[in-house]
Amino acid sequence: MLEAAEAGNRLGKEEFKEVVPGLRAGLLNAQFDLRKADFPVIVFVAGDDRLAAGDLVKRLHEWMDARYIDTTVFGDPRPEEVERPRQWRMWRAMPPRGRMAIWAGGLMRMIEARVAGQVDDAALEAWTVHLEALQAELLADGALVVKLFLHTPADEQRARLETAGVGRGGWRVDERDWAMLEANSEARPLVERFLRRTSAPGAPWTVIEATDERHRDVTASRTILDALTARLATPPPESPSAPVEMFSPGPEQATVLASVDLSARLSRADYRKRLEKAQARLHDLALRAREASLPVVLAFEGWDAAGKGGVIRRCTVPLEVGDYRVIPVAAPTTEELRFHYLWRFWRDLPPAGQVVIFDRSWYGRVLVERVEGFATAPAWQRAYDEINDFEAQLVEAGCLVQKFWLHISPDEQMTRFKAREITPYKKYKITDEDYRNRERWGDYEAAVDQMVLRTSTDIAPWHLVSAEDKQNARVEVLETLTAGLKAALKHR
Amino acid sequence: MLEAAEAGNRLGKEEFKEVVPGLRAGLLNAQFDLRKADFPVIVFVAGDDRLAAGDLVKRLHEWMDARYIDTTVFGDPRPEEVERPRQWRMWRAMPPRGRMAIWAGGLMRMIEARVAGQVDDAALEAWTVHLEALQAELLADGALVVKLFLHTPADEQRARLETAGVGRGGWRVDERDWAMLEANSEARPLVERFLRRTSAPGAPWTVIEATDERHRDVTASRTILDALTARLATPPPESPSAPVEMFSPGPEQATVLASVDLSARLSRADYRKRLEKAQARLHDLALRAREASLPVVLAFEGWDAAGKGGVIRRCTVPLEVGDYRVIPVAAPTTEELRFHYLWRFWRDLPPAGQVVIFDRSWYGRVLVERVEGFATAPAWQRAYDEINDFEAQLVEAGCLVQKFWLHISPDEQMTRFKAREITPYKKYKITDEDYRNRERWGDYEAAVDQMVLRTSTDIAPWHLVSAEDKQNARVEVLETLTAGLKAALKHR
Repeated sequence: MLEAAEAGNRLGKEEFKEVVPGLRAGLLNAQFDLRKADFPVIVFVAGDDRLAAGDLVKRLHEWMDARYIDTTVFGDPRPEEVERPRQWRMWRAMPPRGRMAIWAGGLMRMIEARVAGQVDDAALEAWTVHLEALQAELLADGALVVKLFLHTPADEQRARLETAGVGRGGWRVDERDWAMLEANSEARPLVERFLRRTSAPGAPWTVIEATDERHRDVTASRTILDALTARLATPPPESPSAPVEMFSPGPEQATVLASVDLSARLSRADYRKRLEKAQARLHDLALRAREASLPVVLAFEGWDAAGKGGVIRRCTVPLEVGDYRVIPVAAPTTEELRFHYLWRFWRDLPPAGQVVIFDRSWYGRVLVERVEGFATAPAWQRAYDEINDFEAQLVEAGCLVQKFWLHISPDEQMTRFKAREITPYKKYKITDEDYRNRERWGDYEAAVDQMVLRTSTDIAPWHLVSAEDKQNARVEVLETLTAGLKAALKHR
Repeated sequence: MLEAAEAGNRLGKEEFKEVVPGLRAGLLNAQFDLRKADFPVIVFVAGDDRLAAGDLVKRLHEWMDARYIDTTVFGDPRPEEVERPRQWRMWRAMPPRGRMAIWAGGLMRMIEARVAGQVDDAALEAWTVHLEALQAELLADGALVVKLFLHTPADEQRARLETAGVGRGGWRVDERDWAMLEANSEARPLVERFLRRTSAPGAPWTVIEATDERHRDVTASRTILDALTARLATPPPESPSAPVEMFSPGPEQATVLASVDLSARLSRADYRKRLEKAQARLHDLALRAREASLPVVLAFEGWDAAGKGGVIRRCTVPLEVGDYRVIPVAAPTTEELRFHYLWRFWRDLPPAGQVVIFDRSWYGRVLVERVEGFATAPAWQRAYDEINDFEAQLVEAGCLVQKFWLHISPDEQMTRFKAREITPYKKYKITDEDYRNRERWGDYEAAVDQMVLRTSTDIAPWHLVSAEDKQNARVEVLETLTAGLKAALKHR
């Protein structure tokens, strides 16, 4: 793949002078149109030439309007980044719809680490798989992804280093460049494989010969301009919808939820005893989790009035206030809608030793958004895989992930709605919408069913909690949580 | 001050049951109204009782709608926080207009550190001064600040600890509580002084006896509700405007800018030589700055077409792409307008070893916003002190701060405007507004004059750069920057 960029491409000074003004005007116009568009642009700049990537980024800032570009150069991971999955910093740098991001650096680092023997093949493979998944998610969400790989043949780099110090700017190269040059040649087969693996329809790598600056800058800019112009003119086709899966199971078909024993009840005395014991244990385990730098992510889903709030409070009482955060998840805000739906959850991931509790979660995509039609069928159908990949990244980064569905019967829900109506400070919790949602109980049941089937994985299983009796639900969740923490701490 | 909260206040179970529903309904309604209001609410929860503060926060989450509260518990500073001024994490947790934040923890930490001998009196004093300044800024910006201090008399705390383990929830106390109890009694005079110092008109401390939970929760909630209700009903008076200072100096009055020698010129050869030398030195110093974990903040201001972009590019060429960020500052976005004007600049402060270059800056407040009337007279008049405090915090946190004003004559500006008109890719840079701005040259001159007089401090002086000759400007800035870096590195 890289040979194509060793042909000795150059661009003459005169030709350069001729094409640049038009190119710049085109870029500025396209940038202007992008501001009103409903998709984000991500330009990856990678390569085997440290100086070329930096110079190109500067040139792009010069030729475009830098105010409308969010550039991130991924260097050595910062402390807060080391504590999260590798992709966390990419999600933090994610541009909203209508903006362009340039992402430089970072991509070659994993390959360099493999060459240096710091990571093994499995780690390199997992990283590649997650990157492919990220790319697919962004493309499916409408993003324009432009990928530039700057290649300078090893001979050229060597020649440049050997004459460094002779010409102007000689201070820019040093022994690190020599080290990179050596590593580059060893890394070449890995780089080639990486480029092939991550060249997807709609997001191929453009390999650019970086030896000649004028050729490099014009080719890179033109690639961006062409891609952006084409995308502004023609929206990509919505990814083909999978055949719509059965929505409502017939009455004869048992759902996963039917397996939950709603008759589970706890006496007041048993409840007090087991709650107290589980909370004491949680207090102790949480302190150990903090010491062990274990991050914890809990997701709570369930029927309206199933008692999520009460359960969450019983879980937080034993935690130190500084050690946890509860994230109540409502309908996305206008700002959040400008990003991929997973963006806001990535943003709130815990640092090492902290607990984040999501009161409703990313599963909204395959629950309320599916049932109410807020997400298209292709969108929610691909979400199962996207969610599994997201959770896999969390677990691989050392995070404990637990997911709870709080289950009650329609009758119990109605009883609780009625009770809320007459409690002044609970009244606001109950709206006409809650009653309307009840009419779609069967649709939600089918959605929950499929959610559990598709996303209950070995590493992040669903816990279906019998919540018909609130006391039982609280104890069941607390005991599941402490068991999970205990097991996770064993592996630290 | 604390004796007032040692009177043995309690609230009976019956009375509690009677008042709570109304209180909760009131809080929920006030929260609802706040969502449409144009001010933010910050509730500080501090105190000498670890458990009480945590329990109160949980109670507030229970009684209000937690989805509309941004709670931050400031624990031990995280790595990314240690690298910035102490207030950085508060600005990161800042609520926008229409939202409520609860800030718990953190405030007592500095006093505890003083008691433990980890910081000296000067550090405690500086911290208090900056906190007072922050409070004044937020109040002036319209924020509602509610400050709750939970006090449990030492005897009560001791009794609680001694009987711990006997009753339910005994697992919640441990040896840390004993240590805190000891420190608390030593800290008491410091706490009293701190509470007095930071009790400002419009933001007094409410000291609440925390011995009795019911009394504590009801008093705290009522304080919040009363403050919020009053604020929603009556906007605070705009802080009185200082007498408007002279706006345009007469022609006879020399301005600071008149002292800049616009005749400074560099020959092509001199330029090349000095630029090359300064860039090589910058390259070297920047690597040392990274190793020394020195953060650097550069702010560039100047007349339209003074050449800021070109100067900034000459500064970034010698830097590694991952070591710096250029932040182009345009008019604030809708989202940014929901915050205090300094918020967006706090957000972009560099971590240790990084350079952040602001292309235009927080000085917009006393330049364009003043001259064009986007900021009220009281707002821009208080901005000088706010900015000085902001920069003092940066410098105290070990940051190198440099500020450049690029100066040109009106004639030179016109020449450059005309040149831009005929360059295709520069055309977009020139609008009718640019010509309109020229008409207010005198007003801007007066604003610059006052800006320099009020904000050129020992620790962060203004550098007035002769930019009539672009080459001279570039070399002048680069040489100032390298001299500054060299001096700053000496102190590391």
